[in-house]
Amino acid sequence: MSKPETAKAESRAETLKPRLPRGFVDRRADEIAAQGRMLETIRKSFELYGFEALETPFVEYTEALGKFLPDLDRPNAGVFSFQDDDEAWLSLRYDLTAPLARFVAENYDSLPKPYRSYRAGYVFRNEKPGPGRFRQFMQFDADIVGAGSVAADAETCMLMADTLDRLGLGGQYVVKVNNRKVLDGVMEAIGLAGPDKAGQRLTVLRAIDKLDRLGVDGVRDLLGAGRKDESGDFTKGAGLDATAVSRILAYVSFQADAGDGADKMAFWEQFFAGWHEAVGESETGREGIAELHAIMRLCAAAGYGHDVIRADPSVVRGLEYYTGPVYEAELTFPVTNEDGQTVRFGSVAGGGRYDGLVGRFRAEPVPATGFSIGVSRLFSALQLVKSPLLAGTETPGPVVVLVLDRENMADYQRLVALLRADGIRAELYLGAAGMKAQMKYADRRRAPVAIIQGSNERLAGEIQIKDLIEGARAAESIGSNAEWKAARPAQFSCPEADMVAQVRAVLARHFPATSG
Amino acid sequence: MSKPETAKAESRAETLKPRLPRGFVDRRADEIAAQGRMLETIRKSFELYGFEALETPFVEYTEALGKFLPDLDRPNAGVFSFQDDDEAWLSLRYDLTAPLARFVAENYDSLPKPYRSYRAGYVFRNEKPGPGRFRQFMQFDADIVGAGSVAADAETCMLMADTLDRLGLGGQYVVKVNNRKVLDGVMEAIGLAGPDKAGQRLTVLRAIDKLDRLGVDGVRDLLGAGRKDESGDFTKGAGLDATAVSRILAYVSFQADAGDGADKMAFWEQFFAGWHEAVGESETGREGIAELHAIMRLCAAAGYGHDVIRADPSVVRGLEYYTGPVYEAELTFPVTNEDGQTVRFGSVAGGGRYDGLVGRFRAEPVPATGFSIGVSRLFSALQLVKSPLLAGTETPGPVVVLVLDRENMADYQRLVALLRADGIRAELYLGAAGMKAQMKYADRRRAPVAIIQGSNERLAGEIQIKDLIEGARAAESIGSNAEWKAARPAQFSCPEADMVAQVRAVLARHFPATSG
Repeated sequence: MSKPETAKAESRAETLKPRLPRGFVDRRADEIAAQGRMLETIRKSFELYGFEALETPFVEYTEALGKFLPDLDRPNAGVFSFQDDDEAWLSLRYDLTAPLARFVAENYDSLPKPYRSYRAGYVFRNEKPGPGRFRQFMQFDADIVGAGSVAADAETCMLMADTLDRLGLGGQYVVKVNNRKVLDGVMEAIGLAGPDKAGQRLTVLRAIDKLDRLGVDGVRDLLGAGRKDESGDFTKGAGLDATAVSRILAYVSFQADAGDGADKMAFWEQFFAGWHEAVGESETGREGIAELHAIMRLCAAAGYGHDVIRADPSVVRGLEYYTGPVYEAELTFPVTNEDGQTVRFGSVAGGGRYDGLVGRFRAEPVPATGFSIGVSRLFSALQLVKSPLLAGTETPGPVVVLVLDRENMADYQRLVALLRADGIRAELYLGAAGMKAQMKYADRRRAPVAIIQGSNERLAGEIQIKDLIEGARAAESIGSNAEWKAARPAQFSCPEADMVAQVRAVLARHFPATSG
Repeated sequence: MSKPETAKAESRAETLKPRLPRGFVDRRADEIAAQGRMLETIRKSFELYGFEALETPFVEYTEALGKFLPDLDRPNAGVFSFQDDDEAWLSLRYDLTAPLARFVAENYDSLPKPYRSYRAGYVFRNEKPGPGRFRQFMQFDADIVGAGSVAADAETCMLMADTLDRLGLGGQYVVKVNNRKVLDGVMEAIGLAGPDKAGQRLTVLRAIDKLDRLGVDGVRDLLGAGRKDESGDFTKGAGLDATAVSRILAYVSFQADAGDGADKMAFWEQFFAGWHEAVGESETGREGIAELHAIMRLCAAAGYGHDVIRADPSVVRGLEYYTGPVYEAELTFPVTNEDGQTVRFGSVAGGGRYDGLVGRFRAEPVPATGFSIGVSRLFSALQLVKSPLLAGTETPGPVVVLVLDRENMADYQRLVALLRADGIRAELYLGAAGMKAQMKYADRRRAPVAIIQGSNERLAGEIQIKDLIEGARAAESIGSNAEWKAARPAQFSCPEADMVAQVRAVLARHFPATSG
């Protein structure tokens, strides 16, 4: 299928430097295995909730992603795009939500509704890469399409909590829930209703979104005239008057004093009573509070305390398409940030209700809610807390059969085949190096055992089994433990016919769990 | 992160038709699970041989793929390409071999050598899609880099065979091996040596590659003046004279009469004696035969008969970069092709030695050999032979808790939470439909059990358990088996406190293997 390379391409090739593209990463075996165990844990959690797998392609028509630049017929620079032979614009998927909306709209009649699906996969961003900012990264999503009831939002919040519990993060996270309708209600109450105020509302939302980072004082500046940061840069504010600013701040800082919170239902009654002031007479705001209250009641009934799933006025979520409840899972343990400050680890998953997204493709609206786990971020968190899930059972490297006489390759190959036939991971040394380098190779492969056969042994029908794990231990204890060392020799010979049984015995001693 | 949509984009959205891009597919839960079992089987086979996982990104610099158009500074139309903010050309990977070469060159000193790696993932082709031709498809590769010995080629051939055995295809495949050096030797022997004959050599290789499809007569025409096909289209031939044509045909049609082949070593001695005529005095050709013979000896020593791994003169492999042994795994069972003819299923995996590919990035050459499994094609083959691997254990759908009184959602939610807490896959019905539609939904989800609680039952602290599998059986046998039906009621009530135990008992009856 490949075209012949031209002389030009060949001369280019001569000086070619191997370079991973900026913002992309390679992953090696240990990381793939550890991340695989994390993903499998998430998958089981999603399956337990009745969600089923779906896989969509990496490429979609750009129009399906809604990613065209304002006033241009070319795609947004934030997505990687290219034209096919029909000159249709294609893009690498930017998230897993837009492709789900396309899939559901295209296959609407053949799906059970509500449709619970989960998807895991890489998404791509054509943005400047930086520390922790990649151009290819993995998301793991769960969504319920076709359920307008807030019981669906309650389910996804509980699923977030259960998934983090299952990953061993119990007691170290909180699922925070808010509602776009409450935020709209608060803004309506201070006179920011109507389409002409859309820009100002967005500035307010973005200011609230910075509460974690800037604190109450910083947000106050951003809601008012503006804020000058440490470097002297000025960010223009939303221009609200003092009354409006304090009303918003009262809302976002709201924390109920709930005593010991033993009665979960009573806690939420009291909590939401306080919120009604913030939305005043706004219908939308009151509806939003009622929905949030219903979600908290459902979670409480299922046993989730307000320390686990909690209504929180500071949750905004950046995406425009949310229409109701929004939620995120935040890890609460402390980490040191780039500036040397101690902060909470922060958000590892988030989502919300997006009732308009499938509707882009259909005449009638299709309600939907769901969330996305940032896989790399969650993986970093598990590394930080030294999760036993990541350590897992370290799989032994292969048994390495060394090659002493190169003209007898077929004999060595036969030994390897005998080991493999018994299910023992094994390989023939295939390089051109001498004995010492071969032993070094076996070490690098973390080989538990090396098999050695010289010409004398071959004639005698014997092989040498070198127990590399025992050998390493013995080397450490030389002098201090000579007797013990003598009792358990790290290298011994045996007849070829006993090789498999003897190797299996050594493996069983070092890896009791994985043998057999 | 998303930009606000413009009015223009919104008006576009109003009429938006949901369309999967041409040449791409969506995959649903059953297929994902079945293909996952197949991939896991392949992975285990590769691990047993000492290969370890590697994952490279989906995107590489286009220059690393060697995919620039002749005489143009733009990438080949066969790859999907785009420029990043530095105007560097990036491409979606076209196969998994070029990214491996880039990875090894970039991380050369940190890798154990020989380096055995396996990689599974999607690759992309910017070509016209057609039946069975996709623009995104999965490959599963195994490669050994840094081993010049043909023992490495023997290992990869044995790995192909063992993998197909493990997939249950034993006795239904053959691994066919050839050597580019033999093909070069044959062409040298008929006077096609030297750089000026490169075009003619390629035409000869392509003609040989069509032996399966066109038979000896078709290939004879293509080696000579040319061939007119059934539609009347004429393909120009390689223009060889009659002596050269018969020499090539004698070589490609060569089959040893090996008696019962009980002595594997003796079989290959006799076999290769016949090949020497074809290459005449060509040094390259003789070296190629010696290498092939060594591979066959190694495979024979490890127990592989010539019915499983076999030297075959008709194997060519299209890719330019092969430098030595080439091999492919062919499934031998019959299928009916598009023209209604009965043919062998054909190739599902192939590869060879590519000693120059890593060398593009480095001063010294780095020998390498490996193969690629066409995952979709192998999956189709397993479907055709009705592989039990794909049927697997069908996982039961979730237990569905129906919703009779919508104002009591919290109570239903609590029942779901109890089931999940015991590890039972369960969900709350989240739609707005009535009882009958909810039962239909449970059927579509393949729910084994539905939980029903009306207001009377709630007052009594009871629930109804409906065994949907038993119910379906009973419905089939109505009238003929009334007694049996009465003995095992498909619906019964029990106290709420017994729900979990009772549901578990029903599941254990229907899915003895997966319970617990």
